[in-house]
Amino acid sequence: MSTICAISTAPGTGGIAVIRVSGPQAISAVQTLWKGRNLMDVQSHTVHLGRIVSPDGETVDEAVATVFRGPNSFTGDDVVELSVHGSPYVQQRLLQLLVEAGCRIAEPGEFTRRAFAAGRMDLAQAEAVADVIASRSRAAHRVAMQQMRGGFSRRLAELRQSLTELASLLELELDFSEEDVEFADRERLISLATEVKKEVDLLRESFTAGNAIKNGVPVAIIGAPNVGKSSLLNLLLGEERAIVSDIPGTTRDTVEDTIDINGITFRFIDTAGLRDASDPVERLGIDRSWDALRRARIILWVFSPDTLPHPTSDIITESDVSPTQTATLQNFSKILHERKAASAKVLIALNKSDLLSPEEITYASARLTNLLPPSSSLTNPIILSAASASGLPALREALVNASGLTSVDDNSIIVTNARHAEALTNASLSLARFLEALHTNLPTDLAAQDLRETLHHLGLITGSVSTPDILATIFSRFCVGK
Amino acid sequence: MSTICAISTAPGTGGIAVIRVSGPQAISAVQTLWKGRNLMDVQSHTVHLGRIVSPDGETVDEAVATVFRGPNSFTGDDVVELSVHGSPYVQQRLLQLLVEAGCRIAEPGEFTRRAFAAGRMDLAQAEAVADVIASRSRAAHRVAMQQMRGGFSRRLAELRQSLTELASLLELELDFSEEDVEFADRERLISLATEVKKEVDLLRESFTAGNAIKNGVPVAIIGAPNVGKSSLLNLLLGEERAIVSDIPGTTRDTVEDTIDINGITFRFIDTAGLRDASDPVERLGIDRSWDALRRARIILWVFSPDTLPHPTSDIITESDVSPTQTATLQNFSKILHERKAASAKVLIALNKSDLLSPEEITYASARLTNLLPPSSSLTNPIILSAASASGLPALREALVNASGLTSVDDNSIIVTNARHAEALTNASLSLARFLEALHTNLPTDLAAQDLRETLHHLGLITGSVSTPDILATIFSRFCVGK
Repeated sequence: MSTICAISTAPGTGGIAVIRVSGPQAISAVQTLWKGRNLMDVQSHTVHLGRIVSPDGETVDEAVATVFRGPNSFTGDDVVELSVHGSPYVQQRLLQLLVEAGCRIAEPGEFTRRAFAAGRMDLAQAEAVADVIASRSRAAHRVAMQQMRGGFSRRLAELRQSLTELASLLELELDFSEEDVEFADRERLISLATEVKKEVDLLRESFTAGNAIKNGVPVAIIGAPNVGKSSLLNLLLGEERAIVSDIPGTTRDTVEDTIDINGITFRFIDTAGLRDASDPVERLGIDRSWDALRRARIILWVFSPDTLPHPTSDIITESDVSPTQTATLQNFSKILHERKAASAKVLIALNKSDLLSPEEITYASARLTNLLPPSSSLTNPIILSAASASGLPALREALVNASGLTSVDDNSIIVTNARHAEALTNASLSLARFLEALHTNLPTDLAAQDLRETLHHLGLITGSVSTPDILATIFSRFCVGK
Repeated sequence: MSTICAISTAPGTGGIAVIRVSGPQAISAVQTLWKGRNLMDVQSHTVHLGRIVSPDGETVDEAVATVFRGPNSFTGDDVVELSVHGSPYVQQRLLQLLVEAGCRIAEPGEFTRRAFAAGRMDLAQAEAVADVIASRSRAAHRVAMQQMRGGFSRRLAELRQSLTELASLLELELDFSEEDVEFADRERLISLATEVKKEVDLLRESFTAGNAIKNGVPVAIIGAPNVGKSSLLNLLLGEERAIVSDIPGTTRDTVEDTIDINGITFRFIDTAGLRDASDPVERLGIDRSWDALRRARIILWVFSPDTLPHPTSDIITESDVSPTQTATLQNFSKILHERKAASAKVLIALNKSDLLSPEEITYASARLTNLLPPSSSLTNPIILSAASASGLPALREALVNASGLTSVDDNSIIVTNARHAEALTNASLSLARFLEALHTNLPTDLAAQDLRETLHHLGLITGSVSTPDILATIFSRFCVGK
C-alpha cells in the first residue's frame, strides 16, 4: 500500500496548515525530514515540536508533528499530521519533499476511502463525512452528523435484520413445502414484508426534506411588477449578510441568494426573468425560470395595495392587471395550483402596508385571505413593509413553519443523498414485487429472488455491496486532504 | 488574563480546521464542551479523540483535542487545539460555544503577541512569524525563517554587546578624565564605533534587497510600441501559472503580474500607460506609471528588428521612431541613466528574432550592444522570439542574475521590514553623531547621549523598548488565529 499525503486544511494562507500523511511509510517518510525527537520511537497520540529540514539543508519550518499509530487512527494506518505555518510556500514545499521521500499526493477523499476500506466506517458514514464538511446550516449539519455517527446505518442494519428473518421464514416454507404449513407462514411473511416496506418508504420519502435541508429550501417570490419583490429579498439577504460577518475569521463564501433562519437554509429562486416574450431565444431563458419556479417548495406571493385581487375572484384576473401581465399571471395561477397539489406551501404577503391605514389593512387582508381555498392553513396574509422593514420577523417565522423542517431533531433519520434515495426506491420496488409474489402465490424461489434484490439495494448504501466505479464516484466529490 | 480562541487555519471549507484556545481557562473551557477523556487530567502534548457537545445536547463534531500545558506552549499559557471537520458551520458554532464558555475571540496576531509578552520570542521574531506565513517564494521564506529563528536578533544582540563595550570604555574615560589616558582610549572608541556603524549600515542597506525579496523585484518592460512587450510578459506569466497549478490543493491566489524564478519573485510594473498626453487628468495616471518605472530594479528594454537604434547612436534618437514617440523615448533615456546611477540593471532584448536570418541577428546584436556604455556587464542582448517562445530560459536566467539576490543564502541576514530599516537608519545617524562628538572632542556626556539613542533605536527592533501603539500596529497586520 502506498503512503499518501495532502494538505488537509482549507486552501490558501492561514495561521497554521495541517499536512496529513497516512500509510505504512508515514512515520519513516516524515522522519527523513524531521529534526527533533525520533518519531519512530514515540508513542501513539503524542505531539512533538521539531523542524522540517530538506535533504539539501533548507529549514522549511518549525512544526508540530502528531503521531497516530495504526490501527488507532482515522485511516487505520500509521498517520502523521504536521502542523506548520499556513504559508503557501511552506505548504507546497513540504508536499514536494514528502513526494521526494516516497509519498504520493492523495486523491480527493482518499483518507476517508482508506478508513472505509479498513472497516472503520461504512459507506453511508463515509459519505456523511463529506456532508459534514459541506454543511453550512445547523439543520444540514445535524442530519450529516447523525449519519456520520451511524444513525442511518443502524436503521439500515435493523431493516436488513428483518429481511434476513423474512428469508429464514421463506426457507422454512421451502423446507415444509410438502406439508400444509404454507398458509399460516405466508400471512406472517406478508405482514413482516409490509412493515419493512413501510420503513423503507418512509426513509425514501424523507429525501424530499433531506434534499431541502442539504441544498436549501427553494423559495420563489412571485407577484406583479412593482409590488416590491426585490426590495423584500434584499432586506432578507441584507440581514443575513450582516449576521454572517460578525465573527472574525469566518469569512463565508456567500452563496448568492440564500439565507439561514433558525438553522434552516432557504434558497431564493431567481424569478426576475418571468415575463412574456415572443423571441424564441429569450423564451429559453424564461422557460428555465418557470422550471425553477416549478421546483419551489414555498411560494411567497407578494401583493401591494394597488395590485389587490378582485374581491369576488379566487385568482387574479385580466381586469386586475395591465394587459401585458396577463399571460404571466395566468402562468402563475396554473403553477400555484400545480405546486399546491405537490404539497408546496403558498404564503401570501401584503407589501407596502405603510401606505395603508389600519382599516385599509384589515380590508386588504380579508381580500387576500379569500384568494386561496379555505382548506389551506397558510393563507393568513403577512403584513409587510419593505421600506420600514416591518413584518420581517413574521415573514421569517412563516418561512420556517412552511419549510416543514421544524420537526427534524437529533434523532430523525433523514436521507439527504440522491444515491441512497435511489437505492431505497429500488429496494421498495423489489419489496413490492416480493409482496406481489406472495399475494399471487408465485413460486417461493421467485419471491426469494426479490428478497435478495432488496438486500442488494440496501447493501449498496452501506457499501457491503460496492464496485470500484461506485467508490470512485463517491470519493471524487470529497475535498483533497480528507 | 482572558482566554482567547480563534480559527487558526485558512478561512473557508477544508478537510479539517483547527480552533486554537489559549489562556488560563483554555483547558477548563474546552472541557465544558468535551465528551471523552477528561482533558483536565491529561498530560501535556497528548492528543485525544472525543466529541464536542453543546450545553443543549447538540453534537457539534467528533474532534481531536491536543493539550499543551504552559509554559511549554506557543503562547506560554495553557493551549488546546481542536481539530474538527473543516465545515463552515462547525467552525462558527464551535467559536460561539467557546465564547459562551467564557473565552474571547482573539484579535489578529494575539497568540503571537502573547508569546512575545511571555518572552518566548522577541519582537523581530514575532514579526517574522507573519512574514513566514505571507511568504510565497523560497527567497522570501528563507529570509523570514532566518529572522523567525533568531538570526537577525542574534546579530542585533552582538551589536548591542559592542555598544555596551563602547559605553564602558566611555565610562572609563569619564573616571580617568583627570588623568592623561583620554587620547589612547578615544582612538579605540572611534575604531570600535566605526566598526559597529559599518555593521549597522550593512544591515540597513540590505533592506533594498530585502524589500525586493519580500515584495518581488520590480521589473519594467519598456520599448517602442509593437516590439512585443505584452506577448513577452504573457509568455512569462503563462509559464508561471501552469507551474503553480500542478499541485492539487494548493490553489494560490494569483498575484497579478508576478512570477517566481528560482525562488525569487519578480513583479512586473505596468508601463502600458507610458505615452505622451496633453490632457492634465490623463497625465496624472501617466506620471504614476513613470514613478513606478523609476522604482524598477531591472529594466528590460525590448527591441524588434524594425525598431533598432541608429548604428552610430548610443541611445534612440528622434529619427529612429515616429514623431509621437519622441518625448516618451527621451523620457526612457533619462530614466535609464537615472536608474543605472541607482544601480538598477538594464537588460537589452531583441524580440521577433524569428523574422531575421542568423547573420541579421548577429548584426542587430552588435548594434544593440553598442546601445549602452561598454562598462556595463549586462548589455549582451537576449535573443527572443515571443511567437516561438525561444530565448525564454536565457531571459529567465538574465532576470535572476540581474536581481542581485542569488548570493542570499540561509546564513544571510537581510532586513525585510521597513520598521527595522527605519530603526537602523536612526541608529546609524546617532552613531554618526557619536563619532562626530568623539572627533570634535565634545564633552563625554554628550557623546554618551548619542550612544544611548543608538541602543534605544536597536531596542525598538527587538522590542526591548516598545509602546502599546507600536505593538498594536505590528500585530494588526497578522492574520486571525496566529
